[in-house]
Amino acid sequence: MTTAIEVMRGHRSIRKFTEQPLTGAQLEAIMASAQAAPSSSFLQASSVIRVTDPELRQSLMALCGNQAYVAAAAEFWVFCADFHRHLQWVPEAKTGFAEQLLIGAIDTALMGQNALTAAESLGLGGVFIGAVRNHPHELAALLGLPRGVIPLFGLCLGYPAQDPEPKPRLPAALMFWENRYPARQDETLMADYDARVRHYYQTRTGGTKDMSWTGQIGDTLAREARPFMLAFLHEQGFCLR
Amino acid sequence: MTTAIEVMRGHRSIRKFTEQPLTGAQLEAIMASAQAAPSSSFLQASSVIRVTDPELRQSLMALCGNQAYVAAAAEFWVFCADFHRHLQWVPEAKTGFAEQLLIGAIDTALMGQNALTAAESLGLGGVFIGAVRNHPHELAALLGLPRGVIPLFGLCLGYPAQDPEPKPRLPAALMFWENRYPARQDETLMADYDARVRHYYQTRTGGTKDMSWTGQIGDTLAREARPFMLAFLHEQGFCLR
Repeated sequence: MTTAIEVMRGHRSIRKFTEQPLTGAQLEAIMASAQAAPSSSFLQASSVIRVTDPELRQSLMALCGNQAYVAAAAEFWVFCADFHRHLQWVPEAKTGFAEQLLIGAIDTALMGQNALTAAESLGLGGVFIGAVRNHPHELAALLGLPRGVIPLFGLCLGYPAQDPEPKPRLPAALMFWENRYPARQDETLMADYDARVRHYYQTRTGGTKDMSWTGQIGDTLAREARPFMLAFLHEQGFCLR
Repeated sequence: MTTAIEVMRGHRSIRKFTEQPLTGAQLEAIMASAQAAPSSSFLQASSVIRVTDPELRQSLMALCGNQAYVAAAAEFWVFCADFHRHLQWVPEAKTGFAEQLLIGAIDTALMGQNALTAAESLGLGGVFIGAVRNHPHELAALLGLPRGVIPLFGLCLGYPAQDPEPKPRLPAALMFWENRYPARQDETLMADYDARVRHYYQTRTGGTKDMSWTGQIGDTLAREARPFMLAFLHEQGFCLR
């Protein structure tokens, strides 16, 4: 077990922070770790908007389901897939391909995870904010994101003011397969996992939340998932072909 | 500077490996680190196919631009976005949204980056293989990937048999913005960076490769980027709405 592995395995999302700011050295270390992540074809198709303006933070919080930590965390960064950069330097570049959405999303997430791991290794905590995709048009307007740029996720960072336990993940035997995807996944393993998740929520909420994993995904996937996203991707120049 | 940050900042892609296999404890630590990454709405929309069959490795190598390390590395894992899992447990789940492609791609990349960092912290090296998307239909057939599953990237892991230097990244001032995406990016900073990349390639190749970063992205983006990808995504049930 290395210390890096300890940091990663100890991850839990932190949503309450003290007011202590990050130092310049911490910010630099986190940014450098993020940038050191691999980049497909060395395209470096990502940008990060660090939001320091308090009024802008309040506006973004309102767009992100009023999650208080979007405004209150010491840091709030918006990670974006970015092919606008390439269009600036190579105006004749061929873009608009679904493949480039994959490149942008994957590479930007590689960066984001390095940023989170770096922060956690420094004793900080954080949480990713998928809700930056709740109102992407409005958010893009507020941050001045041009065509070619898509906000993918936010990242709140700061010193933890809570100490939650890690959430139990799917058994590795239901996520890692050898040589071939299975025709059918094991129902006994899933029933055991459902029981573990139910126990986790009951313990964490003092018995008020009674929910298995399959129950939870059923609830989440009973609704349309941000049905405006495809149109937004098209407007920003992605997934056109 | 923490050891985790040192590991991440020291990253360089490794494409030549010794024949030494990984231990079971190493594999478990890497898998557990990957699974500990955050998951959007706790959907855990990822699967990993660990390819141990030598003939299958050869076939995959042929589909991945004949990159020898796909067959030769101690480990080769294919990271997939996976909503088939959810459809097994919740057949009435609403899927097909572009948003779910983003969830799957981002969450799977978060896992992949943790896997790479864990491996590097153990003294191993690795490289991501975007070329698993070169022939996605054929690759999906070989791995038995059903509708709802998309191969996103491969990961070769093993003990390094080479020691390349890290590649110079874009200046942070061209990737991290404060509060607003800039109307125009700084041409002097880019010219400096282009010169640094040119120097890196010249040094690394003994003068035979003469290429700036803007030159390289111009070459890459002069061609269509896997133009079959949108059709493949549709067939697998993504980006339909």
